[in-house]
Amino acid sequence: MSIKFEILKKCKKTKARLGKLFTPHGIIETPIFMPVGTQATVKAMTPRELEDLGIQIILSNSYHLFLRPGHSLIAQAGGLHKFMGWKGAILTDSGGFQVFSLGKLNKINDEGVSFNSHIDGSKHLVSPEKAMEIQMALGADIAMAFDECTTYPAGKYQVEVAAQRTVQWAKRCKEAHYSLNQSLFGIVQGGVFKDLRIENAKKLVELDFPGYAIGGLSVGEPKSIMYEILDCTVPCLPNNKPRYLMGVGAPQSILEGTIRGVDMFDCVLPTRNARNGSLFTSSGKLSITNAKYKDDFTPLDNQCKCYTCQNFTRAYLRHLYMSKEILASTLGTIHNLYFMSSLMKNIRLALLEDRLLEFKEEFLSNFLS
Amino acid sequence: MSIKFEILKKCKKTKARLGKLFTPHGIIETPIFMPVGTQATVKAMTPRELEDLGIQIILSNSYHLFLRPGHSLIAQAGGLHKFMGWKGAILTDSGGFQVFSLGKLNKINDEGVSFNSHIDGSKHLVSPEKAMEIQMALGADIAMAFDECTTYPAGKYQVEVAAQRTVQWAKRCKEAHYSLNQSLFGIVQGGVFKDLRIENAKKLVELDFPGYAIGGLSVGEPKSIMYEILDCTVPCLPNNKPRYLMGVGAPQSILEGTIRGVDMFDCVLPTRNARNGSLFTSSGKLSITNAKYKDDFTPLDNQCKCYTCQNFTRAYLRHLYMSKEILASTLGTIHNLYFMSSLMKNIRLALLEDRLLEFKEEFLSNFLS
Repeated sequence: MSIKFEILKKCKKTKARLGKLFTPHGIIETPIFMPVGTQATVKAMTPRELEDLGIQIILSNSYHLFLRPGHSLIAQAGGLHKFMGWKGAILTDSGGFQVFSLGKLNKINDEGVSFNSHIDGSKHLVSPEKAMEIQMALGADIAMAFDECTTYPAGKYQVEVAAQRTVQWAKRCKEAHYSLNQSLFGIVQGGVFKDLRIENAKKLVELDFPGYAIGGLSVGEPKSIMYEILDCTVPCLPNNKPRYLMGVGAPQSILEGTIRGVDMFDCVLPTRNARNGSLFTSSGKLSITNAKYKDDFTPLDNQCKCYTCQNFTRAYLRHLYMSKEILASTLGTIHNLYFMSSLMKNIRLALLEDRLLEFKEEFLSNFLS
Repeated sequence: MSIKFEILKKCKKTKARLGKLFTPHGIIETPIFMPVGTQATVKAMTPRELEDLGIQIILSNSYHLFLRPGHSLIAQAGGLHKFMGWKGAILTDSGGFQVFSLGKLNKINDEGVSFNSHIDGSKHLVSPEKAMEIQMALGADIAMAFDECTTYPAGKYQVEVAAQRTVQWAKRCKEAHYSLNQSLFGIVQGGVFKDLRIENAKKLVELDFPGYAIGGLSVGEPKSIMYEILDCTVPCLPNNKPRYLMGVGAPQSILEGTIRGVDMFDCVLPTRNARNGSLFTSSGKLSITNAKYKDDFTPLDNQCKCYTCQNFTRAYLRHLYMSKEILASTLGTIHNLYFMSSLMKNIRLALLEDRLLEFKEEFLSNFLS
């Protein structure tokens, strides 16, 4: 089966939607945040911990899995779900972003991108066709078209060339993609140029993908510009298809994205922050290694019902981080992912109860105080 | 309450005993293996994972906790159990071994040991009285007397002085120790010299501790010598009290210790090995990063019922280790601790069913093949 998207309710005051995304590996309630499992593991989490946290879908990175252990090996294992023991849904990115940010000596032309592995320097070429071969081998529920993501800032001509190439590559991806149990999403590029975004979105919509991502944002531009780009891009995308804002995971940005009509988000932020001791609480981010938590025998967040907050104190967590214990990453990640899950659950509940803007205001007044 | 030890059955063919150790934090079935939680955490394990594994008692290190986060802080938190969220029993070592192996510039005299912290170089003096203060603050169910552990090889005179000092310190520990919920064990020293061991054991037995450890073994001497020392030391210890062989965790040594009448064991081996990719199976140790496991889609150990073996393949585990993922340590540790728990369970069952030697032979013929 391919995915099916159902909108249960539309917000009257914003463009937000409450929806359900049916995948071969379960039903996902939207808006949803997808934790990142770069190398076929959400760092520091066992699959059963993810299940306990109510995680419905994770993202994994084609670029990393292509290089190690290799997509063919994962295909041989029966696909990524089976390989990593994950029963929920998976979305794989195309590798487009990583070949630029991680690959060395990368060169791009219409054929694709040639680059040297960041692990062992080995040479590779990834084309749209290759990206489809890799993602079909991985067998995620949702695959992404191979795109060219420009940096910020970048000149308009450069961005335009990349955006046009992204459309050409999207066509080739669609032609090369034939997996029945996997749905291929298109990715809109166009940098911070509204006219390029609108043009790019329209061209991609003509190709009729079952879902659309907005790529190339959250790459260094001011948040206000990101929101403006969403304002002009989202209305160009079909109403009845899921919309995915790539690489965005800061709570305030998720709220701003949601009210602009985005259904899906992903980011390494909650998990990476957790490993660095930056932990979310209802009253904002907290750096747990701060000396003031040394003898603080209260939970990380009094209001939180996660395993970490129900069983451990700030003083203990600080000790684990100061001692560089593995358990620090585990407990921090459990908490930050629980925080994200709760946030998304609360967003969906607020949408259902027609009070999304009120929820947003209340949440941010505590979180940003 | 202090501990109570009950022997349920004695082996007819060996000195092994099947027993129950009653502690303020649960009943422990002996012979038992205690995983090590050096810095108030068994590395890579959440307390709920340890509970799932059926772990009844863990060991934690006074030396490390004294330096970081400090025993006073842990006392303030309500003791080590509460601090680390562990409901089972805890044994703390005295720090005697670590001040020598980890402390820098350490100097010993009858008063105690002065040393510089391996973390920040700060100067400290630990005496028998201080070791008791630290362990009472930590509040473990079982505390250990402060001893002087000699290295291997060491001259007889040096070992004799250390053994005599250990007796003097044991007396002072007993005098300084007054916690009602904690039982203090004595430690027998004497290196690889049988006469010193026998003399040391007798003197310590006169002090009437509720349990006895055999220290200073597994420090580099040949296994055969360790077994000979056990052969002459164990018979000097009271029959009705638990006997604990410190720092021993290799499966074959546990079996050899058990048949010589040892009830308790601890070692970092299963957890440290796990982090290095050395994993126990019924047919011996396996180095999971070996290239031959690259496309091995079978479980680590076909006969194992642990979470890791029930859900993941060797190929996936190898990928996690090669990618230096945190989950590698978690899944490896779950497996190795499950292996140790199963081994101890099987030893106890064999004892109950009067077939300990047969079990030992069968186990070792597979494990060492």
